[in-house]
Amino acid sequence: MAEPLEFYFDFSSPYGYLASECIDELAAKYGRKVRWRPVLLGVLFRETGAVPLTQAPFKGGYFLRDFERSARFMGIPYAQPANFPIATQNAARAYYWLHDQHHGMARRFAYAAYRAYFVDGRDLSSVDLVLDLAAQQGADRAALAEALAGQPLKDRLKAECEAALKKGVFGSPTVLVDGEIFFGADRLPQVERWLETGGF
Amino acid sequence: MAEPLEFYFDFSSPYGYLASECIDELAAKYGRKVRWRPVLLGVLFRETGAVPLTQAPFKGGYFLRDFERSARFMGIPYAQPANFPIATQNAARAYYWLHDQHHGMARRFAYAAYRAYFVDGRDLSSVDLVLDLAAQQGADRAALAEALAGQPLKDRLKAECEAALKKGVFGSPTVLVDGEIFFGADRLPQVERWLETGGF
Repeated sequence: MAEPLEFYFDFSSPYGYLASECIDELAAKYGRKVRWRPVLLGVLFRETGAVPLTQAPFKGGYFLRDFERSARFMGIPYAQPANFPIATQNAARAYYWLHDQHHGMARRFAYAAYRAYFVDGRDLSSVDLVLDLAAQQGADRAALAEALAGQPLKDRLKAECEAALKKGVFGSPTVLVDGEIFFGADRLPQVERWLETGGF
Repeated sequence: MAEPLEFYFDFSSPYGYLASECIDELAAKYGRKVRWRPVLLGVLFRETGAVPLTQAPFKGGYFLRDFERSARFMGIPYAQPANFPIATQNAARAYYWLHDQHHGMARRFAYAAYRAYFVDGRDLSSVDLVLDLAAQQGADRAALAEALAGQPLKDRLKAECEAALKKGVFGSPTVLVDGEIFFGADRLPQVERWLETGGF
């Protein structure tokens, strides 16, 4: 079987959220699975010098409008969170902890976390919300709380961010298909063509 | 009749070139015309602090690859110019001078200029090439050469760049449809939906 796609995203990235709502179905259409890899844009941006879109001089307003318009265009529910962007290390660390125990639980947590933030406007930077969402997927709340406070899980996320940078990932979302890098939710049509044709 | 779309671009912008090969046909499908408006990214970037994509730390290589892949995806001939990006004030000024005399001549010049640079790899920063391309569309070469050396045409391009900034334009290509701003060649599907539905 062909290798899974790799899907890199930050839990505070609107375009990452939009891609997250499509990528599994898109890959499945071509018999492929997807390996989800949350990263921290703050870490990637230290390498690239980039700033969050809405904090960029002059053009922040455009992107706020484009987030919502792109969501409508793609038919995905979206409500711009009042507090944006937020710190997402708790959500990302929780994802990896869940993933090491049960892939499906981690995936369900990721969907729930993105929707909590970008549909329901809940504060995903809060450890309590992260623990609640994980527990709702069947995770052991106390064990996760302990893991989130420990160094190994922090090191794990750091290593994942470094590995992403080594693969050339600099933003969210980024999709790798057999080594080919696609950046942006707006590149999903190219990802689909690539899967369909094996490269173009 | 509905107002024309406005199409802002820099003659050195790969995504601007890709959009230029589609925008007239796209608009015509919905009974609309397009007002082409070359600008200088150098002037816009002074406002926004942006840098040319291929000079951005870490991610320049990705964009070089994406230019060519996006062209193949869109079915448009493209060859990455060795000298990139280039200064495009001569081409942009020539466009406005031609435009004031004959819309159609300016449009044909714009197509020819983009293709000379992004298909044939010719040096569009050269005044001689700009004059040759304009003359090929039927322009008076000597009169254009004189105009390019004068202050009024310089002021004209400066005013066009300032007017673009006032409308919120910060990059190339940007398309305005009845006041709605779309940035990027990858937003053309949204432009089409907007034209089709009157907004979404």
